[in-house]
Amino acid sequence: MNNATTPAGLPGAYPQALPLVITQGDPAGIGPEIVLKAVQQHPDLLPHLLVAGDVPTLRRAAGFLGGGSPPVMLAEVSGWDALERVPPDCLAVVQACSPHPLVPMGVVSTIAGRAAADAIRWAAAAVLGGHGGAMVTAPIHKEALAAAGEPYPGHTEMLQALAAEHKGTAIGQMPVRMMLSCPGLRTVLVSIHLSLRDAIACVTQAQVLQTLRITARHFKRCGWQSLRIGVAGLNPHAGEGGLFGLEEIEAIAPAVAQARREGINATGPHAPDTVFMRARQGEFDVVVSMYHDQGLIPVKLLGLEHGVNTTLGLPMVRTSPDHGTAFDVAGTGRASPESLIAAIDAAVGMTAMQ
Amino acid sequence: MNNATTPAGLPGAYPQALPLVITQGDPAGIGPEIVLKAVQQHPDLLPHLLVAGDVPTLRRAAGFLGGGSPPVMLAEVSGWDALERVPPDCLAVVQACSPHPLVPMGVVSTIAGRAAADAIRWAAAAVLGGHGGAMVTAPIHKEALAAAGEPYPGHTEMLQALAAEHKGTAIGQMPVRMMLSCPGLRTVLVSIHLSLRDAIACVTQAQVLQTLRITARHFKRCGWQSLRIGVAGLNPHAGEGGLFGLEEIEAIAPAVAQARREGINATGPHAPDTVFMRARQGEFDVVVSMYHDQGLIPVKLLGLEHGVNTTLGLPMVRTSPDHGTAFDVAGTGRASPESLIAAIDAAVGMTAMQ
Repeated sequence: MNNATTPAGLPGAYPQALPLVITQGDPAGIGPEIVLKAVQQHPDLLPHLLVAGDVPTLRRAAGFLGGGSPPVMLAEVSGWDALERVPPDCLAVVQACSPHPLVPMGVVSTIAGRAAADAIRWAAAAVLGGHGGAMVTAPIHKEALAAAGEPYPGHTEMLQALAAEHKGTAIGQMPVRMMLSCPGLRTVLVSIHLSLRDAIACVTQAQVLQTLRITARHFKRCGWQSLRIGVAGLNPHAGEGGLFGLEEIEAIAPAVAQARREGINATGPHAPDTVFMRARQGEFDVVVSMYHDQGLIPVKLLGLEHGVNTTLGLPMVRTSPDHGTAFDVAGTGRASPESLIAAIDAAVGMTAMQ
Repeated sequence: MNNATTPAGLPGAYPQALPLVITQGDPAGIGPEIVLKAVQQHPDLLPHLLVAGDVPTLRRAAGFLGGGSPPVMLAEVSGWDALERVPPDCLAVVQACSPHPLVPMGVVSTIAGRAAADAIRWAAAAVLGGHGGAMVTAPIHKEALAAAGEPYPGHTEMLQALAAEHKGTAIGQMPVRMMLSCPGLRTVLVSIHLSLRDAIACVTQAQVLQTLRITARHFKRCGWQSLRIGVAGLNPHAGEGGLFGLEEIEAIAPAVAQARREGINATGPHAPDTVFMRARQGEFDVVVSMYHDQGLIPVKLLGLEHGVNTTLGLPMVRTSPDHGTAFDVAGTGRASPESLIAAIDAAVGMTAMQ
């Protein structure tokens, strides 16, 4: 059984031949630095990674690591064939964006947004095209992305569009869900960046059922033989029999019943205020949350340092750390790679089992 | 500075002469058992408590404690004068309801509901009348309460009505709020048992401001010299500048601004998914939550065993454990008194500072 949330214990032998592709994120943020710190702390990863980014930016980030720590040597590759010739103590990097001047640290810029978006496109094409085993994304800055003219609010929407384009289908045919995980807790969200009022409107039988199907399919692909999904209610006490809201009766319970008919081991709706505690105590493998904060409050409380964001529903594995570009500490050498290491570990775990 | 959530360290000397009045809760639930277990574990409490309940029911509960543990000796008192004559190794109890046959354990009944309600009335009258220093309530069963013809869904509403009656004011003139606390986190809720849709409608400037005022007044009465209140937003990322909902801009921020003009050290609205983590890390003393599950998910996750419910806004101190009657384990001797001990400790702490 795969435990995708354990950040420790990266495997000594990479489970497959295809490299894991990591995007460097916004070059003005902590992304390049934490990518290098991750391999500095886990040099066993080196032969299995390819970093998509801007090579001069990555070289600059190597200077943020501090003199006392072992240096990270970069080996620029220009094609898949070259990957085999990278020395085992070097990190393979690819120039995945147009060459550009180094951007100032901690500042939103069009150049940085363009470089970040280009790296995502490069990495997604590599993994969707079968050259990469999975994709891990370092944080981007959405204002920079918008400044560069990208229409996507974040990675999830961009990757959904790229994957749909790759498959030749409409975006609506590729529903995705966000899963957040930390040691001891995983949760998949029915909706994300909507007002709470609009999020309530998303709690329909169809949306909840789709979430359950996407969740079940993801874990099945990852090799889970059995999966216990706990489904949260929307209202206090899961509505207490209709006393405080009808969504449990009209939408959630019918979705759970239909999922169970399809062989998905889902139960609920459970009282939201105790379902996460019960999952943490081992009763559920994953909790389906009805809205953003219902799921994110417990995950952030339990494990901000180790939080991992996984996009479910894509035709590839994609994870990311559950934090932002941290412009306030970018360039100081103080950024922690913990969450990125957890994201790499989760991606390796998910890929190994497929 | 008073730390009302620390369950350990009940003071050796009770800080005042007035007894703390504990209601036994529903006689068919775990209430009587956990009251006795609390004093069994903390015999130093004995001289400072008075249990309001049904004496035969409490005697029966003494039989659930198990042979290996020290016995709890009960001393029935019939008036305040008699309290002084209770031996220091005995627990003072008062027959606070009409005598009734012993009820079967773990079953909803009219008799049990009536006995529970009578004990609450007795204890509230004692504390509001100046005979008791504070009130701690063991859990009741709301179906039993309803079966006994009581119009209140729970303790909070009943105590609000009793306090208003005592003061000779309308219930609307005595607004109350629920505070939940556990080691490391306290939160006060703008609303409680409403559908999420109705809870959103409660997020008005007036309701949020009233919550802030009640919270500030409570802690001031408890002797806090300074209090840092973190106010949660309603929407993801606290609405992200109006992108995901307007309640932050239209209701919460103006309430925080007005509270600050009144000398209340409130900040926010903060992103809901990180405000509890920040409070736990020490940035805020208390978080004002916009709805039931926003506040209860983190409290239950962090400390179900030590959760304490405090009613703010009453003209008396009232706390209770944050769990129910646990009919499934009632009478088995397996119930834990941890949360009740934390509630007693919190009440003592709040009373000592007034």
